[in-house]
Amino acid sequence: MPNPIKRIGVLTAGGDCPGINAVIRAVTKTAIYKYDLRVFGIEDGFQGLIENRIAPLSSLHVSGILTRGGTILGTNNRSNPAHCFVGNDEDGKPKFADVTPRCLDNINAHKLDALIVIGGDGSMGCAMPFVEAGVNCIGIPKTIDNDVAGTDLTFGFLTAVATATDALDRLHSTAMSHHRVMVCELMGRNAGWIALHSGIASGSDAILIPEIPYDIDRICTFVKNRMAHNRGFSIIACAEGARSTDGKQIVAHVDPTRPEPIRLGGVGQHIATQIQQRTNIEARTTVLGYIQRSGTPIANDRVLATAFGYHAIEQLMAGKQNRMVSMTNGTLCDVDIKSVAGKQRLIPMDEPLLATARAVKTCFGD
Amino acid sequence: MPNPIKRIGVLTAGGDCPGINAVIRAVTKTAIYKYDLRVFGIEDGFQGLIENRIAPLSSLHVSGILTRGGTILGTNNRSNPAHCFVGNDEDGKPKFADVTPRCLDNINAHKLDALIVIGGDGSMGCAMPFVEAGVNCIGIPKTIDNDVAGTDLTFGFLTAVATATDALDRLHSTAMSHHRVMVCELMGRNAGWIALHSGIASGSDAILIPEIPYDIDRICTFVKNRMAHNRGFSIIACAEGARSTDGKQIVAHVDPTRPEPIRLGGVGQHIATQIQQRTNIEARTTVLGYIQRSGTPIANDRVLATAFGYHAIEQLMAGKQNRMVSMTNGTLCDVDIKSVAGKQRLIPMDEPLLATARAVKTCFGD
Amino acid sequence: MPNPIKRIGVLTAGGDCPGINAVIRAVTKTAIYKYDLRVFGIEDGFQGLIENRIAPLSSLHVSGILTRGGTILGTNNRSNPAHCFVGNDEDGKPKFADVTPRCLDNINAHKLDALIVIGGDGSMGCAMPFVEAGVNCIGIPKTIDNDVAGTDLTFGFLTAVATATDALDRLHSTAMSHHRVMVCELMGRNAGWIALHSGIASGSDAILIPEIPYDIDRICTFVKNRMAHNRGFSIIACAEGARSTDGKQIVAHVDPTRPEPIRLGGVGQHIATQIQQRTNIEARTTVLGYIQRSGTPIANDRVLATAFGYHAIEQLMAGKQNRMVSMTNGTLCDVDIKSVAGKQRLIPMDEPLLATARAVKTCFGD
Amino acid sequence: MPNPIKRIGVLTAGGDCPGINAVIRAVTKTAIYKYDLRVFGIEDGFQGLIENRIAPLSSLHVSGILTRGGTILGTNNRSNPAHCFVGNDEDGKPKFADVTPRCLDNINAHKLDALIVIGGDGSMGCAMPFVEAGVNCIGIPKTIDNDVAGTDLTFGFLTAVATATDALDRLHSTAMSHHRVMVCELMGRNAGWIALHSGIASGSDAILIPEIPYDIDRICTFVKNRMAHNRGFSIIACAEGARSTDGKQIVAHVDPTRPEPIRLGGVGQHIATQIQQRTNIEARTTVLGYIQRSGTPIANDRVLATAFGYHAIEQLMAGKQNRMVSMTNGTLCDVDIKSVAGKQRLIPMDEPLLATARAVKTCFGD
Repeated sequence: MPNPIKRIGVLTAGGDCPGINAVIRAVTKTAIYKYDLRVFGIEDGFQGLIENRIAPLSSLHVSGILTRGGTILGTNNRSNPAHCFVGNDEDGKPKFADVTPRCLDNINAHKLDALIVIGGDGSMGCAMPFVEAGVNCIGIPKTIDNDVAGTDLTFGFLTAVATATDALDRLHSTAMSHHRVMVCELMGRNAGWIALHSGIASGSDAILIPEIPYDIDRICTFVKNRMAHNRGFSIIACAEGARSTDGKQIVAHVDPTRPEPIRLGGVGQHIATQIQQRTNIEARTTVLGYIQRSGTPIANDRVLATAFGYHAIEQLMAGKQNRMVSMTNGTLCDVDIKSVAGKQRLIPMDEPLLATARAVKTCFGD
Repeated sequence: MPNPIKRIGVLTAGGDCPGINAVIRAVTKTAIYKYDLRVFGIEDGFQGLIENRIAPLSSLHVSGILTRGGTILGTNNRSNPAHCFVGNDEDGKPKFADVTPRCLDNINAHKLDALIVIGGDGSMGCAMPFVEAGVNCIGIPKTIDNDVAGTDLTFGFLTAVATATDALDRLHSTAMSHHRVMVCELMGRNAGWIALHSGIASGSDAILIPEIPYDIDRICTFVKNRMAHNRGFSIIACAEGARSTDGKQIVAHVDPTRPEPIRLGGVGQHIATQIQQRTNIEARTTVLGYIQRSGTPIANDRVLATAFGYHAIEQLMAGKQNRMVSMTNGTLCDVDIKSVAGKQRLIPMDEPLLATARAVKTCFGD
Repeated sequence: MPNPIKRIGVLTAGGDCPGINAVIRAVTKTAIYKYDLRVFGIEDGFQGLIENRIAPLSSLHVSGILTRGGTILGTNNRSNPAHCFVGNDEDGKPKFADVTPRCLDNINAHKLDALIVIGGDGSMGCAMPFVEAGVNCIGIPKTIDNDVAGTDLTFGFLTAVATATDALDRLHSTAMSHHRVMVCELMGRNAGWIALHSGIASGSDAILIPEIPYDIDRICTFVKNRMAHNRGFSIIACAEGARSTDGKQIVAHVDPTRPEPIRLGGVGQHIATQIQQRTNIEARTTVLGYIQRSGTPIANDRVLATAFGYHAIEQLMAGKQNRMVSMTNGTLCDVDIKSVAGKQRLIPMDEPLLATARAVKTCFGD
Repeated sequence: MPNPIKRIGVLTAGGDCPGINAVIRAVTKTAIYKYDLRVFGIEDGFQGLIENRIAPLSSLHVSGILTRGGTILGTNNRSNPAHCFVGNDEDGKPKFADVTPRCLDNINAHKLDALIVIGGDGSMGCAMPFVEAGVNCIGIPKTIDNDVAGTDLTFGFLTAVATATDALDRLHSTAMSHHRVMVCELMGRNAGWIALHSGIASGSDAILIPEIPYDIDRICTFVKNRMAHNRGFSIIACAEGARSTDGKQIVAHVDPTRPEPIRLGGVGQHIATQIQQRTNIEARTTVLGYIQRSGTPIANDRVLATAFGYHAIEQLMAGKQNRMVSMTNGTLCDVDIKSVAGKQRLIPMDEPLLATARAVKTCFGD
């Protein structure tokens, strides 16, 4: 029986991530050149599926996009068909509804035989109602945080690590020249992969991650010890989700009690303040922010993104249903998309890089 | 009469800046190789002069430092011999004193015939009492802000512009993919040179600088117009010292009324909040911070820093007194250090780059 | 009298150079936004003028090209209307003719009131017949070699210096680890600006430029001296046009006497071979080649290119005729295009960077 | 029984490779901080072992070297104790001898309990006589070519890929602007890993590797087809060891028949020449050369190098003998050093990246 796949839709959901365009390019080129499929781009993630903003993607559209950050399809990190904002009620409260049927109509209207969903764990979750409705969804894991379950590596992560490492490298010169503590707050709300990798790569003196609660006293002792041993500076790579042993998590936020909505500093600022107060050593913070999730993907990420895009189409054409492509144990493979949707992969306590970092005397604050 | 210069001291004061080491290297190598001088490094800026932390600098010390960020001599951006903290009085209040005489003793003890002061306008000011006391001070202008009077260009500035431009380039991909306004807060408390250059270099849609007060309504209109013309995103390069037409300047600061000392957002955050509230377009902020003032200097800055270091020794050996080296009208030259100490060079309203930016439709908020 | 300029043509001629697209963007945006002109892009340099490949350029065409290397218009570095290949004669010899009249017809057919010529000294020369025929030509100097007469700086040069410096920085690690001499051959057939700037920026031990003939014995002595003083390696930045004191210039070339046309090494290879033979110290060569003239322009070059593009249109609209925009003595200005066409700006012997390099003990082989 | 390891020697052999210093740092810090070992650095690879140039390595020696290219220990890519040059005989011919016993004496003199050998397949081979003599040798695979048997990944490789990708990215702009074929010759004498990865990462149109002999006719057809389909340029990533289907391998070499020893072009030049002759499309070559094997390691390589250094000491202290550390199937592990010495890992024909590249229409010349 010939494979019935003739027309596919592609969408990119969730936050920006280096390498999305490389995936779109590989999906489109493989589909067109190798299998003569018709490819449709869905604009702005699931929002375009809701609003029927769906248009053909040709090989010309994806020419030259391999090296560009962002997504030519646009994305939206709040749109979820199962819980879609549909206006306010009489009292001015927002109303939400399940608009999955409308999306299914749009999928049918374009005769899409499958959906390629490029997104993180949340986006895979958004795809579930479509899977249940019989739409073949092939997921491609996208997150700079590297915390999608079912894969050891997601594209975008290594670029984020490179960006964070470059920032930490730079802060070394200021820290040394001023004999300061420099805290760099990095992305990672629940998983500390970026801080762990970039912390090791930059030779940071301390690495603070959500998975290992820190004790501020231990950090201060560590910093003072370094000062006493003639290393009058310290670099701290700190995930935004790092939390102290008393369970408190300080996240940058808007203070609603103030006349003007002003964002308050997060855990990086908190730690720098604590260190300066307790040790009398100057401490400063840098919040790397959006810089980490944007820009040109590094070579590795382009290779991984291209391989992921290729593998997605291969599995589809091999007749597989509802798979998420994966890099597991160094091998390009795929897993059941239902088994990973909404799950996160945190740093396990037996991760060899934790032992590696400790061996070169990195402080985790524990 | 032979030039009486035999021994010189070098100090680096003020904030970190890419290229300081390149200057130290050029000063030391020129002094030793060309003029057979003895060179002494003074640690941690004027603080080392106060505390007599002065040690010989050989060509070996400066080997391999050309490309490294920071300063091998260390720096201190608060130490001022004319107003030096000397402990607390009975009531616990800090006491300050003029310790210039102690510094002069240290200069004499090392028989230094001249002082090379690598610093910004503040550091040139700190050098004035020594000039008045008869010490030949040769200044080398250092600031990433490019706002030292008496020179069109300071080393470190072009590296800061490169770093800021790289960040703005990256934010483009996120802005486009999410149809957002991305505000990037850059250094520049009084002078907007970094924002102006990096804003043009990155093709930012708006550039906000201290020299041109902005009207938030005009910015919002500009952003909405772009959205209406199918360019659903905007990039705003914003100097930290940008101020609105009502004269209000919002600077990131610690709020003393809060139980924990937390840094509040600055003008970048303020503008993003205003835009989102008034236009309903998503707006986000990145504060580039210390990343701008650190790291490896770019090629131009290494050339400029080397030329400055060379020229400083040349003028000294030509018998000149109290000069600051300068790049004016594209020419390596020098000016009277007294004429520039404590003065700042802001962007003049007839700067051709302002007209250039306006011609390609950049919004200055005015 | 109102300025009669309504329609302009833009062409890019000669070799690739970082920043061309930034110029095209600034020219187009300034012309359209500020002066409501109609802009036409001429494809592949003068070849498109000959073949009437001329099409409208809108602001949409130039959107997003600021950071991209190359030229969206295409270029051609051999086409010259005054001496145009028009086929072979009966004996198979190439025939050339002056096709300026045909070009003028094409200019008239599109009612172009002026021509913006983005090119080097050769391209300015190609524009002369049009100037003489009454076409208002505004030149924008483009060359990575920085050797166009009439301007101190051309866009593209600083990016080439950055690329060369990065390569020389890298070679340091290999040279040190292997105790070798590493020769890096850089562009610069007649002018050694790239080698001089990148040599200083990278702290190269020797810099060889066409303007200062080298004596191989002096280079060997220099290299051996370094080895004797425990610096067991040397880095040599060598312009491709470097020549020895006996006047011999060794340029990479195809040897017609060999069965297969194989390119023979140039002066970099020659010098490395000579050093290894005479000193017994391992020497290796890297020819940087096309890498130098391509890729994303650095921030400075984007600013300069944008200012040049803006200034070209400003002068045109101010009623000026036949000017080349220029950066002279640090000032954006313009010169008579006829006064610079076909002329080259070599490094003068009183260039301060030569003295700077010598002061830090750089060998020029003289 | 307590582990008898108290003193270890470390040597780096073979060609320069980004990340060697990161390995030396991790080995030294782990050995000293975690196990209180004494660490000795052996200079210039096996040559230092022969000449007894062995000195203590402290944590201070390895401070700040994480990000630096090269090796602080020096290296030598020709020294082999089993076949050591010991002078010329009476006829002037070089004499070689097995100086393993002398090396063993030096090892014993320093009471080294184990040897950490950082090197490629050749260096692992050089270590074999010491293994056979009872010296515990722990290998750490180093090669930019990624062709050491027994590991999927070697440190340095990903940096080489990044450098090659950057070069290929740059050449795109020149190729497009000039409608040319640009051939970039990359390292890889026997294995084409660098060309494969950087070719995919840069979206190169053709990738030529030693493992897949190319047919020049197919390449020319491919290039002409692209030209015919309005893509008037092609980028070819070509491993230096690429060979044609007739088995001929063209390697850059010195021609001894010429009066001056001049290096002749390699396969990249050959292919460009052939393409230009056969298709009349302009073709140019860039030979990336030593740039690929030097400079600051990228973040991934620093992490891998640190993990390798840590794991080497862990295995040693766990009582293991003669292991080479390895990254296999994404897992940090180790293999018998005897099983891998002198073996190379070529690209297997079922490598998924080959299929990936073909799916996006990459030409392999077959």
